[in-house]
Amino acid sequence: MKICVLPGDGIGPEIMAEAVRVIDALDLKFELEEGLLGGAAVDATGDPYPEATRKLAREADAVLLGAVGGPKWDSLPREQRPERGLLGIRKDLCLFANLRPAILYPELANASTLKPEVVSGLDILIVRELTGDIYFGQPRGIENRNGERYGFNTMHYTESEIRRIGRVAFEAARKRNKRLCSVDKMNVLETTQLWRDVMTELSPEYPDVELTHMLVDNAAMQLVRAPKQFDVMVTGNMFGDILSDEASMLTGSIGMLPSASLDANNKGLYEPSHGSAPDIAGKGVANPLATILSAAMMLRYTFNNEAAATRVETAVKKVLAQGYRTGDIYEPGTTKVGTKQMGDAVLAAL
Amino acid sequence: MKICVLPGDGIGPEIMAEAVRVIDALDLKFELEEGLLGGAAVDATGDPYPEATRKLAREADAVLLGAVGGPKWDSLPREQRPERGLLGIRKDLCLFANLRPAILYPELANASTLKPEVVSGLDILIVRELTGDIYFGQPRGIENRNGERYGFNTMHYTESEIRRIGRVAFEAARKRNKRLCSVDKMNVLETTQLWRDVMTELSPEYPDVELTHMLVDNAAMQLVRAPKQFDVMVTGNMFGDILSDEASMLTGSIGMLPSASLDANNKGLYEPSHGSAPDIAGKGVANPLATILSAAMMLRYTFNNEAAATRVETAVKKVLAQGYRTGDIYEPGTTKVGTKQMGDAVLAAL
Ligand SMILES: CC(C)[C@H](C(=O)O)[C@@H](O)C(=O)O
Ligand SMILES: CC(C)[C@H](C(=O)O)[C@@H](O)C(=O)O
Repeated sequence: MKICVLPGDGIGPEIMAEAVRVIDALDLKFELEEGLLGGAAVDATGDPYPEATRKLAREADAVLLGAVGGPKWDSLPREQRPERGLLGIRKDLCLFANLRPAILYPELANASTLKPEVVSGLDILIVRELTGDIYFGQPRGIENRNGERYGFNTMHYTESEIRRIGRVAFEAARKRNKRLCSVDKMNVLETTQLWRDVMTELSPEYPDVELTHMLVDNAAMQLVRAPKQFDVMVTGNMFGDILSDEASMLTGSIGMLPSASLDANNKGLYEPSHGSAPDIAGKGVANPLATILSAAMMLRYTFNNEAAATRVETAVKKVLAQGYRTGDIYEPGTTKVGTKQMGDAVLAAL
Repeated sequence: MKICVLPGDGIGPEIMAEAVRVIDALDLKFELEEGLLGGAAVDATGDPYPEATRKLAREADAVLLGAVGGPKWDSLPREQRPERGLLGIRKDLCLFANLRPAILYPELANASTLKPEVVSGLDILIVRELTGDIYFGQPRGIENRNGERYGFNTMHYTESEIRRIGRVAFEAARKRNKRLCSVDKMNVLETTQLWRDVMTELSPEYPDVELTHMLVDNAAMQLVRAPKQFDVMVTGNMFGDILSDEASMLTGSIGMLPSASLDANNKGLYEPSHGSAPDIAGKGVANPLATILSAAMMLRYTFNNEAAATRVETAVKKVLAQGYRTGDIYEPGTTKVGTKQMGDAVLAAL
């Protein structure tokens, strides 16, 4: 059982170190191999997703990623930007199913900017298609037309792409509260009219799951108005990018939220929902819990080890109950700790 | 001075009746002519933007619209859906600049699902490009390819389209707090890389305005995390659809929010930000204030009558201070009124 470990940029290496300590402590005979992705890879090789990493990632059963990107690489040509590494590995490994839970931990309820009654008990799973849509559509580019610059991109989905992610979402809903809300913009975009049609066609195969549809603008509103109405949401790559970030922020503690990106055989890439936070990188203050919880998702989805996954998640809940907080989730009356101390606390709680 | 009045569907006719009473009371010698748009127009003529309305709208100086759409027309073929009427009139009249204020009225602070300290004093203006982007891009459609359905749409912008909306946004920021945040997804979409480039190129012409850039996923988060960081936001048609609805909902009282859609000569279409609310249509309980405030925007932007605009806005603030509330903004201790009574109260306060 091989895990490819990609610490990445910014706070990536620090938070990854703690997740690796947790994995080691489980003593599950994983083989861990480290590689470069994003800005770190650009610096070393000129390529954000270098051949060596590609080989490692392809051979591994799962990939654990810290975070990529930072202002240092923002002015590089498109092909060398850290994000291209992330998009490259997603596409290369066919990781079409992105699962992003937005969970409010009761201990951190105050962190939300929303009123407690609106978000208490919040537990949404966003299922985002990750290898299609306008992210990868051709043709695309910036050209000169009629004497001026013209930028263009192509949104597209085939029915099999939609069906594939639809099944993942229906299956996920089946294991939860059996409500699935599919998000589209069918009143304007034909691509998402097809999206709605295919979701509707799938629905009879999952009679135990209630399927509803919502327009993306309304979904962005409803997440603010009454987020607890949602159980599982499924949507395309572009809308999923926006809505999953909005949903994460409802909890107020994005430093706590893991994510999984899966292929058709449950091989997956696991990463925290937050970014590389260059402003606090190297200071030992970043919150490693989202990365540790990403490792738990890996145990569950790729290695089918529910017991180990729950063990890690329980340990995380325990350290929260014990009052340990990194700076991002700190409030008076709790114990402020750094990245490594938080890792220590999780290890102790395991 | 001609105003084309399009009551539309659902609660449209009821709320429009009150706005028309307010306009009449100003005694400004407007000529009002009524037309059909959306579902009402489909029912009468089979076309959501019929020729007669087109003629009326083209000849008028401004258009005042209630709302369009409803479940009744959802299963019609694409070309006959009410929304096509709305998209049609926007494109036909070249209404490229959509201005959507998200303002929290102090009297309605409780209506927000966000904590008071996060939203008190909120005053954001979203400038959304309205006649380009993936909304109108060709090619588009659903086809059969390789034995399965394939849906596709085209996002595009020319630099002149971006420059045109950019200028509107810079000018608006100049009249406010001089901060403009341009929202894009330049790390993935070439179209929006061009968007960022053109905004950056415009910036030196407006040295008094501070221009910043934000990725759309981050903008969706920041609106929840700390909305008061924004003064004016400018973005494309698709992202603007999502973010402006999210921003409206931060106030908790979308029944209060007007909008303006302007062409290059300040001819405009004015409409409430909320929808046609078919569930409460015909009951006389809908909130007419967003439509009345849309009429105020019309007085300001198209008719350049700041005094009359302010007079209407002041009257609306007064009825709020007096405690009058329609059902959508009602809370214990205030006086619940219906649509017509709310109109009466505004007239009395004028
Ligand atoms: C970095 C960027 C390309 C990426 C995306 O847009 O998918 C990120 O925002 C995410 O959601 O993982
Ligand atoms: C009804 C629909 C076509 C429209 C849009 O997407 O532009 C609406 O959502 C809006 O924002 O005015």
